Amino acid sequence: MNRRTSSTSTSTHPPPPPGRQHSYATSTSSRRNDGLTRRLSALSTAESGEVQDPAATAADETVAEEIAEIKRYEDFTTIDWVQDAARENQRRKARRAQRVDYFDREGRIGWRRKVWEAYDAGQGWIVVTLIGVAIGLNAAFLNIVTEWLSDLKLGYCTTAFYLNESFCCWGAEGGCAEWHHWSGHFWPINYLLYILFAGLLSYTSARLVKSYAPYAAGSGISEIKCIIAGFVMKGFLGFRTLLIKTLAMPLAIASGLSVGKEGPSVHYAVCTGNVISRLFTKYRRNAAKTREILSACAAAGVAVAFGSPIGGVLFSLEEMSNYFPLKTMWRSYYCCLVATAVLAAMNPFRTGQLVMFTVRYDRSWHFFELPFYILLGLFGGLYGAFVMKWNLRVQAFRKRHLAPYPILESTILALATAVLCYPNMFLRIDMTESMEILFLECEGGHDYDALCDRSNRWSMILALLLATVLRTFLVIISYGCKVPAGIFVPSMAIGASFGRMLGILVQALHETFPTSAFFAACEADAPCITPGTYAFLGAGAALAGIMHITVSVVVIMFELTGALTYILPTMIVVGVTKAVADRCGKGGIADRMIWFNGFPFLDNKEEHSFGVPVSQTMTANPTTLPAAGMLIRDVEKVLAETKYQGFPVVDNDENKILLGYIGRTELRYALDRAKREQQVSLHARCFFAPPDGPATATTPSASLPGVTFDDMAGQGEMNVDFSKFVDPTPLAVHPRLPLETVMELFKKLGPRVILVEHRGRVVGLVTVKDCLKFQFMVEAEEHPRQDGSGIREQQDKLWDLMRKVAGLMGRWTGGRLRLGEVSPPGSAGLPAETERRVGEGGRTGEVELDDR
Amino acid sequence: MNRRTSSTSTSTHPPPPPGRQHSYATSTSSRRNDGLTRRLSALSTAESGEVQDPAATAADETVAEEIAEIKRYEDFTTIDWVQDAARENQRRKARRAQRVDYFDREGRIGWRRKVWEAYDAGQGWIVVTLIGVAIGLNAAFLNIVTEWLSDLKLGYCTTAFYLNESFCCWGAEGGCAEWHHWSGHFWPINYLLYILFAGLLSYTSARLVKSYAPYAAGSGISEIKCIIAGFVMKGFLGFRTLLIKTLAMPLAIASGLSVGKEGPSVHYAVCTGNVISRLFTKYRRNAAKTREILSACAAAGVAVAFGSPIGGVLFSLEEMSNYFPLKTMWRSYYCCLVATAVLAAMNPFRTGQLVMFTVRYDRSWHFFELPFYILLGLFGGLYGAFVMKWNLRVQAFRKRHLAPYPILESTILALATAVLCYPNMFLRIDMTESMEILFLECEGGHDYDALCDRSNRWSMILALLLATVLRTFLVIISYGCKVPAGIFVPSMAIGASFGRMLGILVQALHETFPTSAFFAACEADAPCITPGTYAFLGAGAALAGIMHITVSVVVIMFELTGALTYILPTMIVVGVTKAVADRCGKGGIADRMIWFNGFPFLDNKEEHSFGVPVSQTMTANPTTLPAAGMLIRDVEKVLAETKYQGFPVVDNDENKILLGYIGRTELRYALDRAKREQQVSLHARCFFAPPDGPATATTPSASLPGVTFDDMAGQGEMNVDFSKFVDPTPLAVHPRLPLETVMELFKKLGPRVILVEHRGRVVGLVTVKDCLKFQFMVEAEEHPRQDGSGIREQQDKLWDLMRKVAGLMGRWTGGRLRLGEVSPPGSAGLPAETERRVGEGGRTGEVELDDR
Repeated sequence: MNRRTSSTSTSTHPPPPPGRQHSYATSTSSRRNDGLTRRLSALSTAESGEVQDPAATAADETVAEEIAEIKRYEDFTTIDWVQDAARENQRRKARRAQRVDYFDREGRIGWRRKVWEAYDAGQGWIVVTLIGVAIGLNAAFLNIVTEWLSDLKLGYCTTAFYLNESFCCWGAEGGCAEWHHWSGHFWPINYLLYILFAGLLSYTSARLVKSYAPYAAGSGISEIKCIIAGFVMKGFLGFRTLLIKTLAMPLAIASGLSVGKEGPSVHYAVCTGNVISRLFTKYRRNAAKTREILSACAAAGVAVAFGSPIGGVLFSLEEMSNYFPLKTMWRSYYCCLVATAVLAAMNPFRTGQLVMFTVRYDRSWHFFELPFYILLGLFGGLYGAFVMKWNLRVQAFRKRHLAPYPILESTILALATAVLCYPNMFLRIDMTESMEILFLECEGGHDYDALCDRSNRWSMILALLLATVLRTFLVIISYGCKVPAGIFVPSMAIGASFGRMLGILVQALHETFPTSAFFAACEADAPCITPGTYAFLGAGAALAGIMHITVSVVVIMFELTGALTYILPTMIVVGVTKAVADRCGKGGIADRMIWFNGFPFLDNKEEHSFGVPVSQTMTANPTTLPAAGMLIRDVEKVLAETKYQGFPVVDNDENKILLGYIGRTELRYALDRAKREQQVSLHARCFFAPPDGPATATTPSASLPGVTFDDMAGQGEMNVDFSKFVDPTPLAVHPRLPLETVMELFKKLGPRVILVEHRGRVVGLVTVKDCLKFQFMVEAEEHPRQDGSGIREQQDKLWDLMRKVAGLMGRWTGGRLRLGEVSPPGSAGLPAETERRVGEGGRTGEVELDDR
Repeated sequence: MNRRTSSTSTSTHPPPPPGRQHSYATSTSSRRNDGLTRRLSALSTAESGEVQDPAATAADETVAEEIAEIKRYEDFTTIDWVQDAARENQRRKARRAQRVDYFDREGRIGWRRKVWEAYDAGQGWIVVTLIGVAIGLNAAFLNIVTEWLSDLKLGYCTTAFYLNESFCCWGAEGGCAEWHHWSGHFWPINYLLYILFAGLLSYTSARLVKSYAPYAAGSGISEIKCIIAGFVMKGFLGFRTLLIKTLAMPLAIASGLSVGKEGPSVHYAVCTGNVISRLFTKYRRNAAKTREILSACAAAGVAVAFGSPIGGVLFSLEEMSNYFPLKTMWRSYYCCLVATAVLAAMNPFRTGQLVMFTVRYDRSWHFFELPFYILLGLFGGLYGAFVMKWNLRVQAFRKRHLAPYPILESTILALATAVLCYPNMFLRIDMTESMEILFLECEGGHDYDALCDRSNRWSMILALLLATVLRTFLVIISYGCKVPAGIFVPSMAIGASFGRMLGILVQALHETFPTSAFFAACEADAPCITPGTYAFLGAGAALAGIMHITVSVVVIMFELTGALTYILPTMIVVGVTKAVADRCGKGGIADRMIWFNGFPFLDNKEEHSFGVPVSQTMTANPTTLPAAGMLIRDVEKVLAETKYQGFPVVDNDENKILLGYIGRTELRYALDRAKREQQVSLHARCFFAPPDGPATATTPSASLPGVTFDDMAGQGEMNVDFSKFVDPTPLAVHPRLPLETVMELFKKLGPRVILVEHRGRVVGLVTVKDCLKFQFMVEAEEHPRQDGSGIREQQDKLWDLMRKVAGLMGRWTGGRLRLGEVSPPGSAGLPAETERRVGEGGRTGEVELDDR
């Protein structure tokens, strides 16, 4: 016990004050006693310090809320879930006490209390219902607008301009007289108009995004993943982003860019949830509850994008949320239900169905088709790996060179896409439409442009191959450009065209060798192979390959089409894809984007085996604050000189006995408030001792605990008590604890910081970023990548070439088209401080995650 | 280091020697240095103590494995997941080192190494594949046997005795000549034979269970939930249980008892997984990996029971596993895929389908049906609450009075069920069969006994009502009897009969008022209401109500029938059910059974807000062991006198500085081994200091760390070093940490014990049971239940009545039927030590969870 006051490096050794030899229980029993002494009366007196008299609690709460408010606007920090939960518990208790108080005073008006309680309990459900309705309505609106804008490139409806082709020609197959192609059937004019419309739509979309809400660009899934995990990104889920994303998304999709709507769907759904839940105090204050709502919204976003409510829930579970308790699942379920029910009631497709297409495959599958299914799975895995690799390179290029020209880039992309796509019958039309066509069985009378025609077979195969290759290329260069853009639907479309091609090939094979043993399971003289099912399975494979998800893909595909008999083939294909994709590198595109952007996100998919203790990765000997006697001036100095997010509070600088932890924000707030309200001098002394310290000694600080600095202004010597800003129970671990266990703690409990304590003394401090840094280092050692400079050189060459072409174009168009719309770098993307220098589209050894 | 030899009980307190003033880093830097000095070289030397030379590691590993082996057979304890993970990391490292060694010696034969590595990496998949195949084969076998046995009660097939009715009459509707009813069409004989067969089947089943594998009784889902969470129950997943469960399950179901096959399915699947994975060293040793496999098996069990692979995965996620990372999901997915693919290939129903019935509803639903859907949801919730309440009372009664007569009970139940059920057309046949009939649309030509006949309507409603009520009663008294018995299918059957009844009523309403505004959405002169869909929805509602699960029910119902258009109604019904069920009490039947049986299971569904610190619930001042100098005799005494599962190791008994934690098992093993191998006397001194102590002093014991006691037999003074059995990094928390956070730690990291440490000193110790005890206490205070004695009295009266009836029967049958087959109480159920006295089927204040 006497070690506490002994110095470690110098030889002065003051004798221990007699009062401090008390045992833990007795030394603390002199403090406030507020009942609740159930079993361990000696201990509980000290422990129950949280239950204070209501007035003090209310004041404390105000302070806590003010700090929470500040923290909300500290951009690019993470939420401390442990503290958040503790605060919420306190809040709940205070609320309960208040309520009892209020209703007792009122003299037991039973029904009022009941109504109030019912409202309080049901508030969550009210919020989720409102959000679900809003998402459903928005989705219906977007569906209609997108379809109309997409068809606008081809022509217009003479009966009512706001109808798209299928509504205009309701009931008729293959076009009708009411639908007017822009210039009759003279294709060059149509082609030109198609290109022009594409450029115009894309330009508008990019312009909107750049001018009003840069965060509305891209898919948003990676960022939302981090936000749900506790990362703070100011404005990313704001109303402006919601509005612009909603407006710009149909424009971007209609422009024909190879982008999908599910990423933006998730983003606008989560924005909706954030905006609406902010109106309720319960959610404005509590990050954990907000996280629940955001997870539910992400689910609803996918649910309305695909008309797949269960798929949405599973997507949120599998991809979006690193923490998904059953309660969140139940909320997500409900939110998806409301959103899809509203969407179904709005009935935007006039089919009475939730989804764009329902397929009913009459024929079941045969076991001999397994090799082809495995082929499809292989394709899916390789497609995902290929697209991710090259897309990340394109993204790196975009970040280095194209950041100042977001609008120009999107417009040129759309123009190029239109030029390339119009000649191909599958690329010309909307992606969902083309999928619908590719999924269909040949029987039943619906045939699009002789897709089922046998004489046409080889040209069809060629067209599908071309569509696959072209679309893949377009996805690689388009995903990530500065318009709302998802990658689900384009991937599915690519998978569908590849699958249909394979299906037609297999069909041809069967028709060439109808009697071979391989096809013995087929009935004679009847169609046996359904190419549509291959398209369907291919779409699932590509989706699984790009996102690295399994169960959700199966359920989404299943809910999209209702192809129950094909559940086993779907599972096989997706399983093969997942196995191949895992071989080719870990993480789906959302995870890769997170690494690419350097967000502090600990992936719960991975399991690590470093075999080192936490002391290897911790910051040893962190800057600590002594519990008593530090001058305000010195505290200010510490704040100014370090960048740490917080400081352990220790008994004194020699023994470093851990007493608590104070965050930088709290310290800053406390200092500012003390200065503002009390004009404390820079020579006042600060006290950080949390109220449970065995503080019965005779030092000046003995009288302080429990008294806030507000009450002390009149005292002779200026003492400021910051103890209530100190977290007295930070998580602390032993320095030899395996790093894996510490990472589990971060993943599963979500503290901002974990202290490392040895025999009561602070020896270190570890954050998520420390863990990530170590992880990247180990990975870089294990899989040394080739130097990124070669790729960077190539990129520079490409950039020079592009500038030259632009210069030529500029001269040719008389200077009207220039690489000129310069905006400050990074303003259209993520703020520069979170960017991490990346070499070849991945991470290299040089990691810059240093802001703690 | 002189601390080590200081005595523990006397009051002499030596002054701190100067050597102890060293700072942490320097005082430990004199220890072994094995590389791995990445950043913090001073610290890492101490920390990397885990990396020892291969020989020592191998010896250590042997010891660790021996202890693990012992722990495996310590019944009714829990697994420490944190330690398990740490041990696995060590093992992996050792293996890697060994492998490198081995292949280096071999002189780089590349392919051998590659094959070995591929096998090692793929072992998990091989195991899962084997298990999946085994489960699929078993399921196919069981499906066929069950169907045949069920129909055996009604008659036999004249062409081949082993065919059931539908295979015998393949293609014919409504019976055929080949199927021979036992006595033509003279119903009394048929009735009698039906009853006799039922009794015989049930007797055989109960006999098998009682004689060979008592654990095969019941559903097993609750127990498996606990086992997956880390509870050890010896033999529950053994080969005998697997065999008996597989044999007894078809008998029990065929006997007509109101029991289902999904619970037993899960149980035999998990047994299969356990038995097969034990054959592989990787799984024999590692509890975490085994847990992964067991979760996957549980999923496969449901998947094959319902032909619903994705539903199985989700069931495992939602109900079985309190820890379900994505890796486990992916394994479950694969296991379900293999199992269902094998089942599909076996094709037991000769339909080419996975499932017993596929329904295709041609008509979509209308929004005006919503109120009826809500009614169905209400029914589901109330049904669940009602059945759970009364079934738990019956279980309590069974435990108190019927435990000695398991066979008699099951036989009488089966006889009574047969007597009651035969007259009702829906109860007479197999439950899945009756569901199939109830789900069908009236259009399409298949009609069972004039179910669709309008003239018959009211008698049909009556029959359905009777079926609902009777089956509910039978489920209440049957679930939990000592044969393999699930509750899914009976619940679904009850829901289906109620739903069909409601559907017929709605249909009647529509036909009475065809022109009312309410039915405006219906087309004129066409059928509008499909009663089959109500049956379908009712089945889902009842299933959700009894199990309190949502997403899995929707997916299972969906995969059972392929009714894609009804996904929204299903979600609505299940949502209403869940909301109602949550109002009526928390937890599904599996959770209630866990509480009823008093398993130490922390439910991750619940969120608590106790608002107290952990010190309120901890065991204060636990028995500690000083790091040095304790006599063997005293250690033995501590072991004999306490029942604790482990002891914190402290610096000395005065300062109580926490150094580590040693489990009772480890201590026992260490003591026994020391005595066996070295004949240590009872006066030898024990040393527990873990190797990272600041051990630079000059005492005799200074040379000990790192040396096992095996090497020390020759020394003069008998010292025994137990340090390697001490866990040097137990999780420790601050006494003021909120209890909720500690419970989160238990739930999410799964340690066996958490120490409570204040400024480095041990002040307490907390286990899952401490938390549960506190939780139950708070709940008992919040919801005081009526005294259980009234119910117990009633039960006693009922028991007296039953004995009298039995006496009469005995006299009447000449003594052949007696309440006589006495077996020791508890032998057929769970061992008595885990039973907790319960009042009225729930828990009262008196909780007996005391074995720590």
